[in-house]
Amino acid sequence: MPRVVVDVMPKPEILDPQGKAVLGALPRLGFTGVTDVRQGKRFELEVEGDDGDELLARVRSMAETLLSNPVIEDFEVHVEEHSVAEVAHEAGRA
Amino acid sequence: MPRVVVDVMPKPEILDPQGKAVLGALPRLGFTGVTDVRQGKRFELEVEGDDGDELLARVRSMAETLLSNPVIEDFEVHVEEHSVAEVAHEAGRA
Amino acid sequence: MPRVVVDVMPKPEILDPQGKAVLGALPRLGFTGVTDVRQGKRFELEVEGDDGDELLARVRSMAETLLSNPVIEDFEVHVEEHSVAEVAHEAGRA
Amino acid sequence: MPRVVVDVMPKPEILDPQGKAVLGALPRLGFTGVTDVRQGKRFELEVEGDDGDELLARVRSMAETLLSNPVIEDFEVHVEEHSVAEVAHEAGRA
Repeated sequence: MPRVVVDVMPKPEILDPQGKAVLGALPRLGFTGVTDVRQGKRFELEVEGDDGDELLARVRSMAETLLSNPVIEDFEVHVEEHSVAEVAHEAGRA
Repeated sequence: MPRVVVDVMPKPEILDPQGKAVLGALPRLGFTGVTDVRQGKRFELEVEGDDGDELLARVRSMAETLLSNPVIEDFEVHVEEHSVAEVAHEAGRA
Repeated sequence: MPRVVVDVMPKPEILDPQGKAVLGALPRLGFTGVTDVRQGKRFELEVEGDDGDELLARVRSMAETLLSNPVIEDFEVHVEEHSVAEVAHEAGRA
Repeated sequence: MPRVVVDVMPKPEILDPQGKAVLGALPRLGFTGVTDVRQGKRFELEVEGDDGDELLARVRSMAETLLSNPVIEDFEVHVEEHSVAEVAHEAGRA
């Protein structure tokens, strides 16, 4: 069953208080060299059906209707083999 | 300047109310065939320096310290050429 | 029609990265004297029916089932006359 | 030490996908009679100093600068004796 990822980010012209808070907190923790941080959302969907254009079009429609506010957010949809949990597990972190 | 993405997701064994709400709302909007939804966070960082192992190690340390709660969340770090805004723009959505 | 508010906060023993980021960012913006920040969620629900114990019990059940993860979050339910939007409007900020 | 709460909600004219997902999911879980749901953020701050107008003005300034995006969100600031954790504990839920 395909895993489809929807990434939703605040549009570049929209102020992002959460990203700004992270950016402001990094230096005190000893992290330098980061010049910008934006915070958005990531959805991992398990979807029945073939992993093709029709499925992506269907998820894009969900993203427009329910997962994002198109006035203030951009989104991107793609199929992804491994979930973040699987990647973290591989790396010995989970 | 490299763009580094940190994806943070609730661990599989952790109940995710926001993902559950999305999953429950989809059928009423006419979307069928989705069997699971998990909602997490995506951070896009602009970082000075070379796009190599040292930079990824540095961002992994930020992810552990400030961007996630390792007890309840998994994370994954990677370099990504295009921001979600750029992809959406390419697709004529932004 | 009663407006019912559900406040959901990470339990005190749970690390809260978003609150920590805000706390870390405040001094650089010139704000001192804040010793702790926790970030949670606020839901404003418009609910049909009488504003009584039965309604609060119903919303408490929603909070346990859909709005929070009781393992890592606490919640509190109460009726509130004015929404945040109304208060901000009164204060001339909206 | 005063505890100050900042409630941040999407402005009424801004589409709120997360509130919409909750609203859409409630009927399938057997909850009826809810006609609208909006989802926002709640910050609990521990602040040094006297619990007076000056302190509230200071926190209002933090809310405008770091905790909210005034273009798309309203906020409200008030002193609150009990945290959500304390209320949940009293109610035997924590």
